[in-house]
Amino acid sequence: MLKNAVENVRMCHPLIHCITNYVTANDCANILLACGAAPIMSDDADEVSEVTAISQGLNLNLGTLSQGRVRAMLRAGMEANRRGIPVLLDPVGVGVTKFRTDTAKELLEKIHFSVIRGNISEVRALSTGVGSVRGVDSDWPEERLHDLRELSAFARQMAAQWKTIVVITGKTDIVSDSDKTFYVQNGNEMMGKITGSGCQLSSLITAYLAASKEPLEAVLAAVCLMGRCGEKAFDRMTDADGNASYLRYLIDAVYQMTGDELEQTARYHLAE
Amino acid sequence: MLKNAVENVRMCHPLIHCITNYVTANDCANILLACGAAPIMSDDADEVSEVTAISQGLNLNLGTLSQGRVRAMLRAGMEANRRGIPVLLDPVGVGVTKFRTDTAKELLEKIHFSVIRGNISEVRALSTGVGSVRGVDSDWPEERLHDLRELSAFARQMAAQWKTIVVITGKTDIVSDSDKTFYVQNGNEMMGKITGSGCQLSSLITAYLAASKEPLEAVLAAVCLMGRCGEKAFDRMTDADGNASYLRYLIDAVYQMTGDELEQTARYHLAE
Amino acid sequence: MLKNAVENVRMCHPLIHCITNYVTANDCANILLACGAAPIMSDDADEVSEVTAISQGLNLNLGTLSQGRVRAMLRAGMEANRRGIPVLLDPVGVGVTKFRTDTAKELLEKIHFSVIRGNISEVRALSTGVGSVRGVDSDWPEERLHDLRELSAFARQMAAQWKTIVVITGKTDIVSDSDKTFYVQNGNEMMGKITGSGCQLSSLITAYLAASKEPLEAVLAAVCLMGRCGEKAFDRMTDADGNASYLRYLIDAVYQMTGDELEQTARYHLAE
Repeated sequence: MLKNAVENVRMCHPLIHCITNYVTANDCANILLACGAAPIMSDDADEVSEVTAISQGLNLNLGTLSQGRVRAMLRAGMEANRRGIPVLLDPVGVGVTKFRTDTAKELLEKIHFSVIRGNISEVRALSTGVGSVRGVDSDWPEERLHDLRELSAFARQMAAQWKTIVVITGKTDIVSDSDKTFYVQNGNEMMGKITGSGCQLSSLITAYLAASKEPLEAVLAAVCLMGRCGEKAFDRMTDADGNASYLRYLIDAVYQMTGDELEQTARYHLAE
Repeated sequence: MLKNAVENVRMCHPLIHCITNYVTANDCANILLACGAAPIMSDDADEVSEVTAISQGLNLNLGTLSQGRVRAMLRAGMEANRRGIPVLLDPVGVGVTKFRTDTAKELLEKIHFSVIRGNISEVRALSTGVGSVRGVDSDWPEERLHDLRELSAFARQMAAQWKTIVVITGKTDIVSDSDKTFYVQNGNEMMGKITGSGCQLSSLITAYLAASKEPLEAVLAAVCLMGRCGEKAFDRMTDADGNASYLRYLIDAVYQMTGDELEQTARYHLAE
Repeated sequence: MLKNAVENVRMCHPLIHCITNYVTANDCANILLACGAAPIMSDDADEVSEVTAISQGLNLNLGTLSQGRVRAMLRAGMEANRRGIPVLLDPVGVGVTKFRTDTAKELLEKIHFSVIRGNISEVRALSTGVGSVRGVDSDWPEERLHDLRELSAFARQMAAQWKTIVVITGKTDIVSDSDKTFYVQNGNEMMGKITGSGCQLSSLITAYLAASKEPLEAVLAAVCLMGRCGEKAFDRMTDADGNASYLRYLIDAVYQMTGDELEQTARYHLAE
């Protein structure tokens, strides 16, 4: 019941602690408010534990990474684990620089994540950087991951290895907790023409997770909702509109979305 | 005459130095331009004194606080005091973490503020953290502050203690310089559905203060203007609009507001 | 052929590494996507070399400068020079603080820039701070630069001295590679009422440069395009719109612009 997931967030107003990049922080805060949650942004190691302690979810995003932000993520993540607060990892740019890959590796060693969300190259880089001693690298050459069935097997294996829910976003999104794996078909190409649609989705997922007792269902609902809002935002575009208007329509659509509407318009199915 | 306050900013184009969080910095810069002022953002201790020295107002905002930004705030604030440039404190998140409360305490000890603007929990935490030895804490238990008359007495006492103008924003906003206290009724609930409406108001107040010789009137005008623009933005919303469009309409309304219109639509009265 | 410059960016999708301020980073990222390029934001010295290495252009912007960002700019700039990747300098606030002027001086000594873009006071401060031993300062007193012909002679001299393309933006924009100098008449006053129109133009120029083999033509095209989009955004404004809507319309216009349209609407001429 995706409907419940939508309504839970609007009822519980979970407070979501984001340690995130400065490029998309404003949109992440506004999309959290749009879905019924509340954002709190704080990235200084001197205070993050206290902020996490009063939050219901923690969103760690590796964009515009810095040494200070890494220290903050480690402290906040460990505090969240101690308190049973769900934590999401958005491995922005992992695989591009050693600093990001090493950071992701350290975070995965010291923190348990409820969800890891990235595109295929980020999640694959995560699996390679972290798991190469276990032979994961050689098992999943890049070319195999163009096939949806292989991609879903990869997501399942990563979910099992990290004891987490893996979300791989792309033309078709994959959501897997290793036991069940879903394909999500909602979405629109325009989402790739704005900065931060991935960061925004990660924020939404954290809010949905924070407000629900059914993690997989909550994550699936957030992924369908973001995709569906991407479709609605596209339908609203006029001839003069471009990506700046699209970004605004997307957040507006999240603000307007109801549980019933998501239930009727979500397009997903269980991988056999 | 609120009208004068609006027109002064449009005539003087005051340059406002903001040391502020990265989540809402863009909206703060644009709302300053909308009201006729000009923003300058700089938060490195190595240069803030020079930036403050050429500005007409200084806006210190504790969002996404860091050690570097604290050093910068201290230097900039002291430079502003030396030069008689008005300084505003926006105690974002004070009471949530020890770091923010300690920082606010240090700033209040070393810098004289022309205005302190926050919501009731921030201003109360400020009074507790800083003033507890003076017994302020025990005098104002939280439950008493739900009553508007008590709230206004609290604002008056804080204004007297800090020799400042206190602005407490909420359903009804309070503006007090300890001598006179005003209630402001303008505003709309949607302002709570966007990130940074408080930061934006603090930026506006700093600009109004910088351009006026009547501080209390200038602050009152800025508070009424923000609330009135919140109402106008709401009236402009269509069925498909959400909080992203609302944020845009709010800044647009500030851009369009005239002295005459504010004079006619401001809703405030003096507390007896 | 400005048309080619527009189409090259849409064909090559150059990846542009921006080390830029947090106030306008989101708009810079979205305007890069609007023109067909892709942004990558990273400002930590530990990783910028790797990011520059996979990029096709590097955009260094001195807004909200910090010591950490200076280290990152030096490393990224030298990496770009080693690899022949074009680098742009946007000297935001140079002349306002010693820190920014010293930083610009160091960058100019250690890095070769393909383009330097600023307003007249920034570019003049750059020439003074850096070139005063060479007598540039005394040669170009401020009052002379109000004259367009003098301004263009100044741009030509700076372009020769720094072996770069100089862009000075103002009511009329100047583009000079010392050999040829163009005046650009596109633009609208509203561009001064939003934060970051300069930062956005610098991002666009970097993208155009990255996708072209004719640097001067590419830079000229980007300057005309930004100005033309400023005109189109203004034409789209309704009575209720202010600067927030204008900012959105501006980026939308960049998204919609075609090579043919720019070819027909660009207004520039060669200085005799």
